[in-house]
Amino acid sequence: MIGKTASTFAHVPAGGEIAHGGRLAEARRLFPGAAEPIIDLSTGINPRPYPVPDVPAEVWARLPEPSDAAALEAVAAATYGGDPTRVVAAPGTQVLISLLPRIVPLTSVAVVGPTYAEHAAAWAQSGAAVTEVGSHEAAAGHDGIVLCNPNNPDGRRTDPDTLAALASGLAARGGLLVVDEAFADLEDGPLSLIPDLPGAGVVVLRSFGKTYGLAGLRLGFAVAGPELAAKIRAALGPWAVSGPAIGIGRRALADTGWLAATRARLDGDRQRLDGLLTRAGLAVVGGTRLYRLAESAQAPAVFDRLGQAGIFVRRFAYRPDWLRFGMPGDEAAWARLAAALG
Amino acid sequence: MIGKTASTFAHVPAGGEIAHGGRLAEARRLFPGAAEPIIDLSTGINPRPYPVPDVPAEVWARLPEPSDAAALEAVAAATYGGDPTRVVAAPGTQVLISLLPRIVPLTSVAVVGPTYAEHAAAWAQSGAAVTEVGSHEAAAGHDGIVLCNPNNPDGRRTDPDTLAALASGLAARGGLLVVDEAFADLEDGPLSLIPDLPGAGVVVLRSFGKTYGLAGLRLGFAVAGPELAAKIRAALGPWAVSGPAIGIGRRALADTGWLAATRARLDGDRQRLDGLLTRAGLAVVGGTRLYRLAESAQAPAVFDRLGQAGIFVRRFAYRPDWLRFGMPGDEAAWARLAAALG
Repeated sequence: MIGKTASTFAHVPAGGEIAHGGRLAEARRLFPGAAEPIIDLSTGINPRPYPVPDVPAEVWARLPEPSDAAALEAVAAATYGGDPTRVVAAPGTQVLISLLPRIVPLTSVAVVGPTYAEHAAAWAQSGAAVTEVGSHEAAAGHDGIVLCNPNNPDGRRTDPDTLAALASGLAARGGLLVVDEAFADLEDGPLSLIPDLPGAGVVVLRSFGKTYGLAGLRLGFAVAGPELAAKIRAALGPWAVSGPAIGIGRRALADTGWLAATRARLDGDRQRLDGLLTRAGLAVVGGTRLYRLAESAQAPAVFDRLGQAGIFVRRFAYRPDWLRFGMPGDEAAWARLAAALG
Repeated sequence: MIGKTASTFAHVPAGGEIAHGGRLAEARRLFPGAAEPIIDLSTGINPRPYPVPDVPAEVWARLPEPSDAAALEAVAAATYGGDPTRVVAAPGTQVLISLLPRIVPLTSVAVVGPTYAEHAAAWAQSGAAVTEVGSHEAAAGHDGIVLCNPNNPDGRRTDPDTLAALASGLAARGGLLVVDEAFADLEDGPLSLIPDLPGAGVVVLRSFGKTYGLAGLRLGFAVAGPELAAKIRAALGPWAVSGPAIGIGRRALADTGWLAATRARLDGDRQRLDGLLTRAGLAVVGGTRLYRLAESAQAPAVFDRLGQAGIFVRRFAYRPDWLRFGMPGDEAAWARLAAALG
């Protein structure tokens, strides 16, 4: 995988649309006769969301006060283990991924892949030369390095001390390490770079929607040293995050009991799903508590069989032998998945 | 006002925070003993919001489908009178204001002022030389021109044919005209540039939150020719707009009956407010159906008297003789305002 430019990535079609999970319209187009309701296992979004409280009328109506957004960032910092002045709330991490190349222009960026395709696309779109590398060791010489920790879809993890050293090296020459911790919330540590974040040369991204099962709310965070945090804040401007996202985010992020219970439940789910996949002849080769990556020469046939049974999973054009499974959300979904896997 | 750079604008403090309406925390700090509930007339947000429908659980939970965002943009285009391929939805217009200088870097920008201060601040922050000019005629020679139509706070209007000609001139030399139509929805035409938008050299911004009284939802639109629209779309990335904003926006923007009734109601309110202000010795010098601008040497004293009575209006550091009044939302607010104005 070393040395490819973004336009030659199998998963970043030149001028085309990047494949994403969670597109039910696509599922219905691919499997027109499939059983409904479709069970969407094509994402890594927690299928049992944090309970959404009633949103007061004035939260919809009024511009959020600056103190509301600051309070959200303080709760996020407490939950993630970082310094509140370094946390910047955004309407989802995707907009941060899209904006970073405009905030920190770089000429040569290595993406440790295969991984979430929007990173390479955003840097390539900004004019950077983007190279996919197989590991952070192979990224030397680039002024930007992008790495997901844990990685999507394979769950690979990188030690935070290693990342801190990488960031320091990049900071010394004006470079940037982007660590996307979209799936870190529910994993066992030490994993996150946030508690010991270097003051420069690195930005960490954290997703709210996946862990809390509220992807439609659009909430995510950048965590960075003072200078870069200020630039990101300026690029987003005031009020980028909606009033409902601030209110729901504050409540959910403070609810550490819910997070602990969710982590325990999903750990059980993970073991249960691994058992189902293994018994169906698929090798579980990685993942996190929110998705499992299975490998098999039969993957295309399994994708079709599941699709016809109304179960939509994630396939990868660049690895036809891979399928990624999100977690079933209820017993009905588990039963249909078990039956369809045979 | 000609020739000032942004850092010398009285309303763009160097390194400081820009003054905005709608900050109740500030109102309570300024007027600690004021009657509650505070009546917030410091914004131009419609005080009687579009009724928010129940948000289905899956709208919070799932990533919006690309077709949902496209449907929102199509409804917005139909309501604004433009071409749907040119409309880009965003989480509020503020993020568009903050991002435009990063999407279209310009070296020399004239802002027709005095106006909404975030425009000048965003361009100055990007490194552009920003000049405030008193009219678009005085903006010749700059590669960027920013103009609000109608203007905030004084309601000045610029003829759309004039703006189209201005855009064509800028397009010919790679420049950009930014027309902020945040307060255009409820005004009588011809006003908007959207129905006859030139294909290059211009972007129009449209706000959802002000007209529909849902500023906390965060929804706004950029309307531009194909090339710039694609750049704005790429800068925001997919899913910048929340599921609730897409759903509520689609319903509200399609409700032309509500818009017509709101326009009629606010026209009555405007006349009623002008009467109150005039009888209180304030000269109404401009405005729109969502705010009125009053001028008086007594403005600072009136600001204080209203504040002590729990009524918060907008003052301007650069024009101490001005006060901007938003529309009271109910009869109790009208009565308190009438009593406080004396």
